[in-house]
Amino acid sequence: MPAKDAYHTIVRTALEKDQWQITHDPLRVVLGRKKGYVDLAAEKLLAAQRGTKKIAVEIKSFLGASTLDEFEDALGQFLIYKVALEVDDPTRQLYLAVPFSVYTDFFDDSFFSGILKRFMVQLLIFDEEQQTIVQWID
Amino acid sequence: MPAKDAYHTIVRTALEKDQWQITHDPLRVVLGRKKGYVDLAAEKLLAAQRGTKKIAVEIKSFLGASTLDEFEDALGQFLIYKVALEVDDPTRQLYLAVPFSVYTDFFDDSFFSGILKRFMVQLLIFDEEQQTIVQWID
Repeated sequence: MPAKDAYHTIVRTALEKDQWQITHDPLRVVLGRKKGYVDLAAEKLLAAQRGTKKIAVEIKSFLGASTLDEFEDALGQFLIYKVALEVDDPTRQLYLAVPFSVYTDFFDDSFFSGILKRFMVQLLIFDEEQQTIVQWID
Repeated sequence: MPAKDAYHTIVRTALEKDQWQITHDPLRVVLGRKKGYVDLAAEKLLAAQRGTKKIAVEIKSFLGASTLDEFEDALGQFLIYKVALEVDDPTRQLYLAVPFSVYTDFFDDSFFSGILKRFMVQLLIFDEEQQTIVQWID
Protein backbone atom coordinates (compact mmCIF):
# COMPACT_ATOMS: atom_id res chain seq x y z
CA MET A 1 0.00 0.00 0.00
CA PRO A 2 1.44 3.41 -0.92
CA ALA A 3 2.55 5.79 1.81
CA LYS A 4 0.22 8.56 2.91
CA ASP A 5 1.99 11.31 0.94
CA ALA A 6 1.87 9.22 -2.22
CA TYR A 7 -1.91 9.48 -2.55
CA HIS A 8 -1.79 13.03 -3.75
CA THR A 9 0.54 12.05 -6.60
CA ILE A 10 -1.55 8.99 -7.40
CA VAL A 11 -4.74 11.03 -7.78
CA ARG A 12 -2.91 13.57 -9.95
CA THR A 13 -1.59 10.78 -12.15
CA ALA A 14 -4.99 9.09 -12.40
CA LEU A 15 -6.60 12.38 -13.47
CA GLU A 16 -3.90 13.07 -16.05
CA LYS A 17 -4.29 9.56 -17.51
CA ASP A 18 -7.98 10.43 -17.88
CA GLN A 19 -7.12 13.57 -19.91
CA TRP A 20 -7.64 16.07 -17.11
CA GLN A 21 -5.34 19.06 -16.95
CA ILE A 22 -4.21 19.93 -13.42
CA THR A 23 -4.70 23.68 -13.12
CA HIS A 24 -4.03 24.30 -9.41
CA ASP A 25 -2.01 22.13 -7.03
CA PRO A 26 -2.70 23.02 -4.34
CA LEU A 27 -5.94 24.89 -4.90
CA ARG A 28 -6.09 27.60 -2.26
CA VAL A 29 -9.53 28.72 -1.17
CA VAL A 30 -9.88 31.55 1.30
CA LEU A 31 -12.51 30.74 3.90
CA GLY A 32 -14.40 33.26 5.96
CA ARG A 33 -15.31 36.84 5.22
CA LYS A 34 -13.34 38.57 7.94
CA LYS A 35 -9.96 37.04 8.62
CA GLY A 36 -9.64 34.98 5.45
CA TYR A 37 -8.60 31.68 6.97
CA VAL A 38 -6.38 29.49 4.87
CA ASP A 39 -6.77 25.84 5.73
CA LEU A 40 -3.65 24.13 7.09
CA ALA A 41 -4.84 21.06 5.21
CA ALA A 42 -5.34 22.95 1.96
CA GLU A 43 -2.48 21.12 0.28
CA LYS A 44 -4.90 18.21 0.04
CA LEU A 45 -6.96 20.08 -2.54
CA LEU A 46 -6.23 20.29 -6.25
CA ALA A 47 -8.10 21.65 -9.25
CA ALA A 48 -8.40 20.21 -12.73
CA GLN A 49 -10.14 20.95 -15.99
CA ARG A 50 -11.20 18.86 -19.00
CA GLY A 51 -12.94 20.71 -21.80
CA THR A 52 -15.33 23.06 -20.06
CA LYS A 53 -15.68 20.93 -16.93
CA LYS A 54 -13.88 22.23 -13.85
CA ILE A 55 -13.42 20.21 -10.69
CA ALA A 56 -11.76 20.47 -7.31
CA VAL A 57 -10.62 17.29 -5.62
CA GLU A 58 -10.13 16.78 -1.89
CA ILE A 59 -7.61 13.99 -1.39
CA LYS A 60 -7.72 11.77 1.67
CA SER A 61 -5.52 8.71 2.12
CA PHE A 62 -7.71 7.25 4.88
CA LEU A 63 -4.49 5.68 6.19
CA GLY A 64 -4.86 7.02 9.74
CA ALA A 65 -5.54 4.86 12.78
CA SER A 66 -9.30 5.13 12.30
CA THR A 67 -11.14 5.31 8.98
CA LEU A 68 -14.10 6.77 10.85
CA ASP A 69 -11.96 9.57 12.28
CA GLU A 70 -10.57 10.31 8.82
CA PHE A 71 -14.07 10.32 7.35
CA GLU A 72 -15.35 12.77 9.98
CA ASP A 73 -12.54 15.12 9.13
CA ALA A 74 -13.00 14.65 5.38
CA LEU A 75 -16.75 15.27 5.60
CA GLY A 76 -16.43 18.50 7.55
CA GLN A 77 -13.73 19.76 5.21
CA PHE A 78 -15.70 18.76 2.12
CA LEU A 79 -18.83 20.62 3.19
CA ILE A 80 -16.97 23.79 4.16
CA TYR A 81 -15.15 23.88 0.81
CA LYS A 82 -18.35 23.10 -1.04
CA VAL A 83 -20.05 26.14 0.50
CA ALA A 84 -16.99 28.31 -0.24
CA LEU A 85 -16.82 27.18 -3.88
CA GLU A 86 -20.54 27.80 -4.41
CA VAL A 87 -19.81 31.49 -3.89
CA ASP A 88 -16.27 31.89 -5.20
CA ASP A 89 -16.26 29.48 -8.14
CA PRO A 90 -19.79 28.16 -8.69
CA THR A 91 -19.08 26.20 -11.88
CA ARG A 92 -16.40 24.08 -10.19
CA GLN A 93 -17.64 20.77 -8.79
CA LEU A 94 -16.04 19.33 -5.67
CA TYR A 95 -15.16 15.64 -5.33
CA LEU A 96 -13.77 13.64 -2.43
CA ALA A 97 -11.09 11.23 -3.67
CA VAL A 98 -11.34 7.85 -1.94
CA PRO A 99 -9.10 4.80 -2.53
CA PHE A 100 -11.01 1.84 -3.97
CA SER A 101 -10.06 -0.38 -1.00
CA VAL A 102 -11.62 2.13 1.41
CA TYR A 103 -14.68 2.52 -0.76
CA THR A 104 -15.42 -1.21 -0.80
CA ASP A 105 -14.58 -1.70 2.87
CA PHE A 106 -16.01 1.37 4.60
CA PHE A 107 -18.63 2.90 2.33
CA ASP A 108 -20.15 -0.49 1.60
CA ASP A 109 -22.33 0.23 4.63
CA SER A 110 -25.75 1.83 4.26
CA PHE A 111 -25.09 4.15 7.20
CA PHE A 112 -21.98 5.74 5.67
CA SER A 113 -23.20 5.66 2.07
CA GLY A 114 -26.42 7.26 3.35
CA ILE A 115 -24.40 10.09 4.86
CA LEU A 116 -22.67 10.69 1.53
CA LYS A 117 -26.05 10.88 -0.23
CA ARG A 118 -27.67 13.07 2.39
CA PHE A 119 -24.92 15.67 2.34
CA MET A 120 -24.38 15.32 -1.41
CA VAL A 121 -20.72 14.31 -1.17
CA GLN A 122 -19.52 13.43 -4.67
CA LEU A 123 -16.81 10.79 -4.88
CA LEU A 124 -13.89 10.09 -7.15
CA ILE A 125 -12.90 6.46 -6.53
CA PHE A 126 -9.34 5.67 -7.54
CA ASP A 127 -7.31 2.47 -7.75
CA GLU A 128 -4.24 3.15 -5.62
CA GLU A 129 -2.18 0.38 -7.28
CA GLN A 130 -3.11 0.97 -10.92
CA GLN A 131 -3.18 4.75 -10.38
CA THR A 132 -6.39 5.02 -12.34
CA ILE A 133 -9.87 6.39 -11.81
CA VAL A 134 -12.35 3.62 -11.07
CA GLN A 135 -15.61 5.56 -10.78
CA TRP A 136 -17.16 8.99 -10.36
CA ILE A 137 -20.19 9.05 -8.06
CA ASP A 138 -22.35 12.16 -8.44
CA MET B 1 -7.02 29.40 29.52
CA PRO B 2 -7.82 25.86 30.74
CA ALA B 3 -5.91 22.91 29.31
CA LYS B 4 -7.51 20.88 26.55
CA ASP B 5 -8.63 18.01 28.79
CA ALA B 6 -10.26 20.44 31.20
CA TYR B 7 -13.00 21.41 28.75
CA HIS B 8 -14.90 18.21 29.19
CA THR B 9 -15.09 18.79 32.96
CA ILE B 10 -16.02 22.44 32.46
CA VAL B 11 -18.97 21.58 30.21
CA ARG B 12 -20.12 18.90 32.68
CA THR B 13 -19.94 21.41 35.54
CA ALA B 14 -21.76 24.10 33.54
CA LEU B 15 -24.58 21.68 32.72
CA GLU B 16 -24.87 20.52 36.33
CA LYS B 17 -25.03 24.13 37.54
CA ASP B 18 -27.93 24.54 35.11
CA GLN B 19 -29.81 21.59 36.69
CA TRP B 20 -28.95 19.02 34.03
CA GLN B 21 -28.32 15.46 35.14
CA ILE B 22 -25.39 13.82 33.35
CA THR B 23 -26.69 10.41 32.28
CA HIS B 24 -23.84 9.10 30.07
CA ASP B 25 -20.20 10.18 30.11
CA PRO B 26 -19.03 9.19 27.63
CA LEU B 27 -22.08 8.54 25.49
CA ARG B 28 -21.16 5.68 23.19
CA VAL B 29 -22.96 5.57 19.85
CA VAL B 30 -22.32 2.68 17.50
CA LEU B 31 -21.94 3.93 13.95
CA GLY B 32 -22.52 1.87 10.85
CA ARG B 33 -24.73 -1.09 10.23
CA LYS B 34 -22.11 -3.70 9.46
CA LYS B 35 -19.00 -3.42 11.58
CA GLY B 36 -20.35 -1.15 14.30
CA TYR B 37 -17.59 1.41 14.41
CA VAL B 38 -16.94 3.05 17.74
CA ASP B 39 -15.45 6.49 17.35
CA LEU B 40 -11.96 6.92 18.82
CA ALA B 41 -13.06 10.43 19.72
CA ALA B 42 -16.26 9.24 21.38
CA GLU B 43 -15.05 10.31 24.81
CA LYS B 44 -15.85 13.83 23.66
CA LEU B 45 -19.57 13.05 23.75
CA LEU B 46 -21.76 13.14 26.85
CA ALA B 47 -25.49 12.84 27.46
CA ALA B 48 -27.67 14.78 29.87
CA GLN B 49 -31.32 15.07 30.84
CA ARG B 50 -33.44 17.77 32.48
CA GLY B 51 -37.09 16.97 32.97
CA THR B 52 -38.16 15.27 29.76
CA LYS B 53 -35.52 16.96 27.61
CA LYS B 54 -32.61 14.76 26.55
CA ILE B 55 -29.47 16.08 24.93
CA ALA B 56 -26.11 14.84 23.69
CA VAL B 57 -23.19 17.26 23.74
CA GLU B 58 -20.10 17.07 21.54
CA ILE B 59 -17.26 18.83 23.33
CA LYS B 60 -14.49 20.55 21.42
CA SER B 61 -11.83 22.67 23.04
CA PHE B 62 -10.81 24.36 19.77
CA LEU B 63 -7.33 24.64 21.33
CA GLY B 64 -5.49 23.03 18.39
CA ALA B 65 -3.11 24.87 16.09
CA SER B 66 -5.95 25.85 13.76
CA THR B 67 -9.51 26.72 14.76
CA LEU B 68 -10.55 26.01 11.19
CA ASP B 69 -9.06 22.52 11.31
CA GLU B 70 -10.84 21.85 14.59
CA PHE B 71 -14.10 23.14 13.18
CA GLU B 72 -13.85 20.90 10.11
CA ASP B 73 -13.38 17.90 12.36
CA ALA B 74 -16.17 19.01 14.72
CA LEU B 75 -18.61 19.56 11.85
CA GLY B 76 -18.04 16.15 10.29
CA GLN B 77 -18.36 14.44 13.64
CA PHE B 78 -21.48 16.41 14.56
CA LEU B 79 -23.30 15.51 11.35
CA ILE B 80 -22.44 11.81 11.56
CA TYR B 81 -23.64 11.62 15.17
CA LYS B 82 -26.75 13.59 14.32
CA VAL B 83 -27.71 11.07 11.65
CA ALA B 84 -26.96 8.17 14.02
CA LEU B 85 -29.05 9.66 16.84
CA GLU B 86 -32.00 10.32 14.52
CA VAL B 87 -32.32 6.57 14.18
CA ASP B 88 -31.11 5.25 17.54
CA ASP B 89 -32.42 7.91 19.92
CA PRO B 90 -34.64 10.34 18.00
CA THR B 91 -35.81 12.39 20.98
CA ARG B 92 -32.24 13.31 21.97
CA GLN B 93 -31.00 16.63 20.55
CA LEU B 94 -27.34 17.05 19.70
CA TYR B 95 -25.38 20.20 20.55
CA LEU B 96 -21.82 21.24 19.79
CA ALA B 97 -20.22 22.83 22.85
CA VAL B 98 -18.09 25.84 21.93
CA PRO B 99 -16.11 28.09 24.31
CA PHE B 100 -17.42 31.67 24.38
CA SER B 101 -14.04 33.04 23.27
CA VAL B 102 -14.13 30.87 20.15
CA TYR B 103 -17.74 31.75 19.47
CA THR B 104 -17.07 35.48 19.49
CA ASP B 105 -13.80 35.21 17.58
CA PHE B 106 -14.47 32.54 14.94
CA PHE B 107 -18.22 32.23 14.49
CA ASP B 108 -18.65 35.99 14.39
CA ASP B 109 -18.11 35.59 10.64
CA SER B 110 -21.06 35.21 8.30
CA PHE B 111 -19.31 32.42 6.39
CA PHE B 112 -18.90 30.16 9.41
CA SER B 113 -22.17 31.10 11.10
CA GLY B 114 -23.84 30.44 7.73
CA ILE B 115 -22.40 26.93 7.70
CA LEU B 116 -23.80 26.27 11.17
CA LYS B 117 -27.26 27.39 10.02
CA ARG B 118 -27.15 25.51 6.74
CA PHE B 119 -26.24 22.20 8.36
CA MET B 120 -28.41 22.86 11.41
CA VAL B 121 -25.59 22.62 13.95
CA GLN B 122 -27.00 23.56 17.33
CA LEU B 123 -24.58 25.21 19.75
CA LEU B 124 -24.07 25.25 23.47
CA ILE B 125 -21.87 28.26 24.21
CA PHE B 126 -20.07 28.02 27.54
CA ASP B 127 -17.90 30.42 29.54
CA GLU B 128 -14.66 28.54 30.10
CA GLU B 129 -13.63 30.72 33.09
CA GLN B 130 -16.97 30.95 34.91
CA GLN B 131 -17.81 27.34 33.97
CA THR B 132 -21.33 28.36 33.05
CA ILE B 133 -23.61 28.08 30.05
CA VAL B 134 -23.81 31.37 28.16
CA GLN B 135 -26.30 30.54 25.42
CA TRP B 136 -28.08 27.75 23.58
CA ILE B 137 -28.42 28.34 19.84
CA ASP B 138 -31.06 26.14 18.19
